[in-house]
Amino acid sequence: MGKCNHQRLQQNLELFSTYGSTLNQGVTRLSLSQEDIQARLKFKEMCEQLGLTVIIDDMATMYATLPGKKPLPPIVIGSHLDSVVKGGRFDGVLGVLTALEVVQSIQDQNLHLDYPITIVNFTNEEGARFEPSMMASGVLSNKFDRDKMLQSTDKNGETFEGALEKSGFKGSEVNRLKEALAYIELHIEQGPILEHLGRDIGVVEGVLGMVCYEISLHGESNHAGTTPINMRKDAMFATSNVIVELQKQLKELDDELVYTIGRINAYPNVHTVIPNQVTFTLESRHKDPAVIKQVENIIKNLPDEHQHCHLTYEKLWDRDTVVFKENVCSVIAESCENLGYSAHHMYSGAGHDAQFIASYIPSAMIFVPSKKGYSHREDEYTSYEECGKGADVMLHAVLQLAKQHVGEESSNLELTNSNS
Amino acid sequence: MGKCNHQRLQQNLELFSTYGSTLNQGVTRLSLSQEDIQARLKFKEMCEQLGLTVIIDDMATMYATLPGKKPLPPIVIGSHLDSVVKGGRFDGVLGVLTALEVVQSIQDQNLHLDYPITIVNFTNEEGARFEPSMMASGVLSNKFDRDKMLQSTDKNGETFEGALEKSGFKGSEVNRLKEALAYIELHIEQGPILEHLGRDIGVVEGVLGMVCYEISLHGESNHAGTTPINMRKDAMFATSNVIVELQKQLKELDDELVYTIGRINAYPNVHTVIPNQVTFTLESRHKDPAVIKQVENIIKNLPDEHQHCHLTYEKLWDRDTVVFKENVCSVIAESCENLGYSAHHMYSGAGHDAQFIASYIPSAMIFVPSKKGYSHREDEYTSYEECGKGADVMLHAVLQLAKQHVGEESSNLELTNSNS
Repeated sequence: MGKCNHQRLQQNLELFSTYGSTLNQGVTRLSLSQEDIQARLKFKEMCEQLGLTVIIDDMATMYATLPGKKPLPPIVIGSHLDSVVKGGRFDGVLGVLTALEVVQSIQDQNLHLDYPITIVNFTNEEGARFEPSMMASGVLSNKFDRDKMLQSTDKNGETFEGALEKSGFKGSEVNRLKEALAYIELHIEQGPILEHLGRDIGVVEGVLGMVCYEISLHGESNHAGTTPINMRKDAMFATSNVIVELQKQLKELDDELVYTIGRINAYPNVHTVIPNQVTFTLESRHKDPAVIKQVENIIKNLPDEHQHCHLTYEKLWDRDTVVFKENVCSVIAESCENLGYSAHHMYSGAGHDAQFIASYIPSAMIFVPSKKGYSHREDEYTSYEECGKGADVMLHAVLQLAKQHVGEESSNLELTNSNS
Repeated sequence: MGKCNHQRLQQNLELFSTYGSTLNQGVTRLSLSQEDIQARLKFKEMCEQLGLTVIIDDMATMYATLPGKKPLPPIVIGSHLDSVVKGGRFDGVLGVLTALEVVQSIQDQNLHLDYPITIVNFTNEEGARFEPSMMASGVLSNKFDRDKMLQSTDKNGETFEGALEKSGFKGSEVNRLKEALAYIELHIEQGPILEHLGRDIGVVEGVLGMVCYEISLHGESNHAGTTPINMRKDAMFATSNVIVELQKQLKELDDELVYTIGRINAYPNVHTVIPNQVTFTLESRHKDPAVIKQVENIIKNLPDEHQHCHLTYEKLWDRDTVVFKENVCSVIAESCENLGYSAHHMYSGAGHDAQFIASYIPSAMIFVPSKKGYSHREDEYTSYEECGKGADVMLHAVLQLAKQHVGEESSNLELTNSNS
């Protein structure tokens, strides 16, 4: 089946890293910003030069389609072009550009598939300008209400609706992705596991379920110099003891569980005042809902009182584990094997458009390694060789899917290679 | 010796609480603000109506003097009229208005002392508009450089020098407080001890020494969902363990030691990102420098590494314990006894102008109870009865000091009471 053109992929990655480039080799390409529009226009131009048909839906999601020989639902591949502020040059854009490379490689090899191939660029995956993240795929899969999304406002007070109108990328609802043979998204891992294990490719079988709680300790503010220790209700010491206790209990659960206290705020946060409140988030992810339940039970069983301070908690949100389609995962795994690339079967700890699309289209993901697990930072890094291997796996998976299903319809039909 | 006029003191406290009054019964009377100037003008007017001479020094500190019969150094009493933002109606102003009440009571009783009595209003004790706190008394006692203080800037970019010029209260260096028989400052306790013990008066024998450190744990930021627990350098869990360890060790030191972690900041402080740094302050106070030294040793002996995070610390500042003049304290204690008011000998945990003035004038302080120890908040509260008792003690102490020293000069001389 051949491989992709790794050099061309590198050139395209380098080109797109100039749209919103930052001083430290990263990019800031917020959804529907001038930088994002630049990237979208270039993507559209490149697709049209390849003879693809580009359509846009009512959330500005772009679909560039290489027609198939038969009126069949497409195989959809892609990701997103937007980034966070001072993000890296791989997150999202790599999935779109490997999809483009796969289509170009198919054309290079003069392959004419029965199935159309559609490259997708989902709008506002990051949610860095307009909350929530995965906005457009969320609307497609009925997780989010479109009218509410239109009212989402950036920090300058501009609504998503306003940005959409101005962007020139407001399309039609009729163009929404409705059905597909499969959706495969290639993405950087954003974690250190592949690098740590020395594997080329992650075969992503699902997305971890998660839960996020906000926990507060309520004490009493008083002057740091005048209040004897035994008369204090010090929310800071109480909080530290609760966090240490949480760590101790969480450590006892499953080894694959992750848990993070990423945000903490003390009030009034002045060195000479005993804090009357400390509030922190505890966010935890695991693929097994039973383990997540155990985390919730640990929180719920915390005593009400800690060092004379009162504990309260609130669940901010949760998300069920998403399990990707087994046969799509198998095709990815087989592609790795055929190419001689080492693979690791894993779940994604981060959220992706694929987790929403999976609700109505057979989906899976391909991960490539992230150096030190860095992401959402300017020094996010995946070597061009690793990117190329990912593109190769995507190419093989797409061809294999097309072949398998053609086979299902008529065992006599084979992929047509006009070169051979 | 009689008592003060508690009703008049109450009226004056109520009057001054209107200068900068807030919605919740507090005051915002930042140094040299319009509200502070209003209060200063009223104080000046009241003093002049009593026949006192009001002079002002180069830092806008006001001195209102009731002449004595002899050319002797004055007995100085007072405090400050400025407040923090949304502070209470007692902090500072109570010391100025009880001083005024003491002078009025002396006049009511037709007493003519050999010593002048000077009521002082120190400029910018709070440091809430212009840092540092105790600015004017710091300049008087050569702790602070006046030229540097003039350049201190408020959050609107106005310098102390600019505010001084505009205030109409810029006086002359020649008017600075140079010598005095004694300085006594009455203040609210700002702590819960007197209320807790059920005592009327605190005989303040000094101000606690203190030290403030900033401690940081340095880890590595990564995605909260994609980084396995055993590959993290999580600065938040490391910090919590350090704080719990600090609390354990500090608890073992002297019972009177106070220690506070008032400020904590995590970076980047986002719920989905493992914090790469957490920084907190540890501030501790005790009257014995040896105990403060032990606190510093605990910090210095913390291991460099905690859960794969690196610990660093920096001393932000320290302050030596100030011991007030024994004979001035004794006079205050005797006054309590003579009046039948219960007293408690104590140190101040908070800083006051008296701690600077004590470096060149025999000084001491009188505390009255603070409900629940509240201060620097709108619901700071001391009953008018408790304020009145404080004023009575101040009156007796002033008369006693004058009498003692007159006695020293000539044992035949007695206080003249033209009524008797």
